[in-house]
Amino acid sequence: MSNPEIEKQLAPLRERVQEQGNLVRELKAKGAAELDVKKAVAELKVRKKLLEEKELALTPSVVSFDRAKMEDLLKRRFFYDQSFAIYGGITGQYDFGPMGCALKSNILSLWRQYFALEEQMLEVDCSILTPEPVLKASGHVERFADLMVKDVKTGECFRLDHLIKQALEKLCKAKEATAELKAECEDIIIKLDGYNKQELADILSKFNIKSPLTGNDLTEPIEFNLMFATQIGPTGLVKGFLRPETAQGIFVNFKRLLEFNQGKLPFAVAQIGNSFRNEISPRSGLIRVREFTMAEIEHFCDPTQKDYPKFVNVKQEVMTLYSACNQMDGKSAQQLSIGEAVGSSLVANETLGYYMARIQQFLLAIGIKPECLRFRQHMSNEMAHYACDCWDAEILTSYGWVECVGCADRSAYDLGQHTSATGVRLVAEKRLPAPKTIEVSEIVPNKQALGKTFKKEAKTITEALAKLTLEEINQVEEQLTNKGHYKLTLTDGSAHQLEKDTIQVKRSSKTIHVEEFIPSVVEPSFGIGRIMYALLEHNFQCRDGDEQRCYFTLPPIISPLKCSILPLSNNADFQPFTQQLSSSLTKAELSHKVDDSSGSIGRRYARTDEIAIPYGITVDFDTLKTPHTVTLRDRDSMKQVRVGVEEVVGVVKDLATAKVKWEDILQKYPIFEQQEATK
Amino acid sequence: MSNPEIEKQLAPLRERVQEQGNLVRELKAKGAAELDVKKAVAELKVRKKLLEEKELALTPSVVSFDRAKMEDLLKRRFFYDQSFAIYGGITGQYDFGPMGCALKSNILSLWRQYFALEEQMLEVDCSILTPEPVLKASGHVERFADLMVKDVKTGECFRLDHLIKQALEKLCKAKEATAELKAECEDIIIKLDGYNKQELADILSKFNIKSPLTGNDLTEPIEFNLMFATQIGPTGLVKGFLRPETAQGIFVNFKRLLEFNQGKLPFAVAQIGNSFRNEISPRSGLIRVREFTMAEIEHFCDPTQKDYPKFVNVKQEVMTLYSACNQMDGKSAQQLSIGEAVGSSLVANETLGYYMARIQQFLLAIGIKPECLRFRQHMSNEMAHYACDCWDAEILTSYGWVECVGCADRSAYDLGQHTSATGVRLVAEKRLPAPKTIEVSEIVPNKQALGKTFKKEAKTITEALAKLTLEEINQVEEQLTNKGHYKLTLTDGSAHQLEKDTIQVKRSSKTIHVEEFIPSVVEPSFGIGRIMYALLEHNFQCRDGDEQRCYFTLPPIISPLKCSILPLSNNADFQPFTQQLSSSLTKAELSHKVDDSSGSIGRRYARTDEIAIPYGITVDFDTLKTPHTVTLRDRDSMKQVRVGVEEVVGVVKDLATAKVKWEDILQKYPIFEQQEATK
Repeated sequence: MSNPEIEKQLAPLRERVQEQGNLVRELKAKGAAELDVKKAVAELKVRKKLLEEKELALTPSVVSFDRAKMEDLLKRRFFYDQSFAIYGGITGQYDFGPMGCALKSNILSLWRQYFALEEQMLEVDCSILTPEPVLKASGHVERFADLMVKDVKTGECFRLDHLIKQALEKLCKAKEATAELKAECEDIIIKLDGYNKQELADILSKFNIKSPLTGNDLTEPIEFNLMFATQIGPTGLVKGFLRPETAQGIFVNFKRLLEFNQGKLPFAVAQIGNSFRNEISPRSGLIRVREFTMAEIEHFCDPTQKDYPKFVNVKQEVMTLYSACNQMDGKSAQQLSIGEAVGSSLVANETLGYYMARIQQFLLAIGIKPECLRFRQHMSNEMAHYACDCWDAEILTSYGWVECVGCADRSAYDLGQHTSATGVRLVAEKRLPAPKTIEVSEIVPNKQALGKTFKKEAKTITEALAKLTLEEINQVEEQLTNKGHYKLTLTDGSAHQLEKDTIQVKRSSKTIHVEEFIPSVVEPSFGIGRIMYALLEHNFQCRDGDEQRCYFTLPPIISPLKCSILPLSNNADFQPFTQQLSSSLTKAELSHKVDDSSGSIGRRYARTDEIAIPYGITVDFDTLKTPHTVTLRDRDSMKQVRVGVEEVVGVVKDLATAKVKWEDILQKYPIFEQQEATK
Repeated sequence: MSNPEIEKQLAPLRERVQEQGNLVRELKAKGAAELDVKKAVAELKVRKKLLEEKELALTPSVVSFDRAKMEDLLKRRFFYDQSFAIYGGITGQYDFGPMGCALKSNILSLWRQYFALEEQMLEVDCSILTPEPVLKASGHVERFADLMVKDVKTGECFRLDHLIKQALEKLCKAKEATAELKAECEDIIIKLDGYNKQELADILSKFNIKSPLTGNDLTEPIEFNLMFATQIGPTGLVKGFLRPETAQGIFVNFKRLLEFNQGKLPFAVAQIGNSFRNEISPRSGLIRVREFTMAEIEHFCDPTQKDYPKFVNVKQEVMTLYSACNQMDGKSAQQLSIGEAVGSSLVANETLGYYMARIQQFLLAIGIKPECLRFRQHMSNEMAHYACDCWDAEILTSYGWVECVGCADRSAYDLGQHTSATGVRLVAEKRLPAPKTIEVSEIVPNKQALGKTFKKEAKTITEALAKLTLEEINQVEEQLTNKGHYKLTLTDGSAHQLEKDTIQVKRSSKTIHVEEFIPSVVEPSFGIGRIMYALLEHNFQCRDGDEQRCYFTLPPIISPLKCSILPLSNNADFQPFTQQLSSSLTKAELSHKVDDSSGSIGRRYARTDEIAIPYGITVDFDTLKTPHTVTLRDRDSMKQVRVGVEEVVGVVKDLATAKVKWEDILQKYPIFEQQEATK
């Protein structure tokens, strides 16, 4: 973080960011035109990106990581691989094999312990297929889209930003490219994220970009909604989507959940489940896929009470915080305790801060490297319009910093949207400190008179009247008094004249003891596939001096299998011990693998290392003698001890549940040095 | 099962089944026309159904069960409820609330222990979105359909069998209905399952059935595929479906999984995940839904070796087996140990038998009533065409006997289908007892000559030649010798004349040590939602003398929460004890609920009983005295004991993990009798 040699190289880049950051601030302060601010922000992003790229290029862990080698291992031992490969496969879909599935399920178990159990959250499991109106209200039908272009002849689709980048990079590499052209292209590539639809269309036509596959013309940019559409039921009339996030299932159940919690706030709801995004052209392995598992929490609270009683337990937790301010100033992230961060209002409130600290504790517990974890605050221009503060847990991988957990204060946005869409009030109540008298204004229809005049439409009119705001009611009263009638315009545009005798404005006062309000939502949202991928990168190792022997240093608590049992040879006398150990491990609920294949013990150890098995029990000729003993080997240090057959399962259990450390075992049992040499 | 009074009433019905069963056997034996056999089988089914209905009508548990009352409780305490209800909801979709979700996840954890861990299965997690070719190969695109009709004007859809049943029942109830008409309608209703598309169309027109909603005409019956369709990627050209079962994900990964298992058979693969069926008009609550969780196992083995080493561990397990034979004879199910059943070949093999016994042990462990569980064998006419033996675990509920777990020997069907569709050989190898010399016949193309004659098509021709069977190769040789050329017909219908100099038949012999074969698959497939529903029915109880106080007697191991903590009142002195107990329970990974609301202790117990919390800790005034003690209450017996504060969490842990029984606790600790009276 503070290597002076590196900092020296970064200093000019930092300066350029700060310069631009100041300009943005200045423009905003003096209320400059939106377009000018936007342009300045785009330039700020470019400078930030240059700084970040340089930083990464100087980070040794990222530079030295051999992704192809790890991916080869993951594929070969079927941690995960492309789905339906024998049918040619589909990009952006992955099947998790035995080790990937076990790893994922262990991560999720631990997640349940860290969050659902620890905070006594209400865990729910909602439908994936979601009818259109729900996702209209949430904004996904309108806004959840990427830009693409199509080959006008073949219909082949290209994600617009990817396509432009590829085309310009090719232009730059051409022999005839002038220095000017190169500079222009590079500039565009860096600014790509900031351009809007029209600007991108202009670039397309300026450089006369064609389909890279056929050379055919391309269509204008099209907005492609990223949700998978389907029809629910046989009529073809009920449109539905596969949910793009699990959160909406929680929001639409808010009333039931509040009631389950006996009407009390705050409470948090958790959900683990699959979501779907129809990416235009997914790449980057598990980082960007069409089908993925999320674990989301929606913490509902009173907007005026965002303190958190258990915050005191985490306030010492030191975090790497990359504030919006530091990003604008070209500074690096800073180390700060979450207590200080909330105290100084850098993090908006205790609830948000508590979750950030817990997210960090969880990620470190599963094996993310602390130096590769930071919390980056969204800058005001990138924050979703409904959020009031948002910090992403970003993990450094060979793909750069990857957003793995979002932690946003979504305020009252979602519940408000669903309330307007359905008319069902998704609100909570709180007792007022003292009873309050309020003025109630309402329009009382004369049902008989209305019915006589408007027949069937009387009902619609009555409903519309009930929805009028106080201001509108005042207008009604005024017009009734002055003109003797009121002209009501319905949502369908039709207007109706209501005479004085058909309605009456009634004013009364009422004493209330409780107050309704829309709760705020703090949402930590975990992308499980991304976390898994980062975890695998952080734990991928090769043995010193033997680059072919690779392994994963996954913590025992989440490693797919806890233990291996390896009989030294296929000697029949070993079998009863192998079987006995296997059934004892099963009884102790320890997942394990017996490898009685004919490979040398060293080769079999290497195979178990590849799938991250932390401990190995070997049955050898000494096992046959009394007292019966076996060797117990630690994956990371490759050290071995000799332990009694009766004891060893208990020892593995304690190690796997982190009750003891390998160092303690080394102290307690005699070291064994022999087998590993045999390769 | 053997109540003589009931048996007397059933005897004539049993006789009628047996009579018809014998007729079916006779027809089959003498090779009667298929149509005659089919008719006889349809009649057999009718008689079986009458027998079963009578049996159910005489079963006290089914008759006395109050479904509406249970459903009210499930809804009120949000075990589960209709999805998107605030948007009007969609039938056949349910959201699981906190208690339903926890129950489900506990059932799945136990399932993993009983199956995946115990048998060291390979658990996988495959994609839900499945491209069309995969489901074409599996047969789902063609065959996974129900018949429906549409209102010609409104487009409203009706599931055909439901519609006919409803219409005929209405006819029967009409005043003018003659006895003859009634008899005819009842006969049709009973036989509905057996009719084909044309027969159903005839019934529609004979009774002039119209839309029950509008009275409009209906279309001819249409086959409606029950899979949800969507498009993968932006082109609109890659058709995909939401998987209708999880099994296919395992089959298409067979090669990777076999390799993971180091090429050895047998091995079993497990998968838990969601599947989807676009039911035409779902009803019956959780029994028939559009989105559901399955837990499936595919056990791959050598078709000639279906013994199972651990069978010996279960062979004493006594099962209620309802064999195809007994079904045809009108007999009831029989009690038999699985050892006897396999020994007498009633159950096809040890592997199938082992899984059946384990399924039973699992279902009983989670709380299914043994007297409401049977294994029904598919009769030859209802078995999927690929299965060689199939037993369904059926559970008796107020909806009748419901198929909850299928257990089928699917032979080599699935792997064979995907092999033909992709050309990727999904096979295993086994070592031959002794090396074998085999004759190899192949066609060696003269590439140069072929290329010269056929240009671009030479490749297709070479590929087609490589696929010829031995018999075809013999024909090639014969024709080359006799005519001097061979006429090759390609799959697209085009024919090509191959001259003698372009190809050559080569015969050689080869010594082989291994033999390839397509493994057999034994598939236990669990419908988790159905099991959950049955479980809730079996465990729904009301207190004697207080029909309003209902509760669920779910076993602690799967109950959603393990414990409640109830301070007797809101006295501030209770709070430190409540908090201390809560954090100790969390540390011990025991899910629990603190209810410090103001209701009387009796009412709060009743609330925890409703959500099946098996144990309750009450903090009262005696807790404040030293030694600090609390009361511990058992949900089912409502008995209480007094236990030390320091000890109670350990006691609950032992109870919740079934290490001790409540009876043991009653022996060990002093009985406490006081609070419950306070309602």
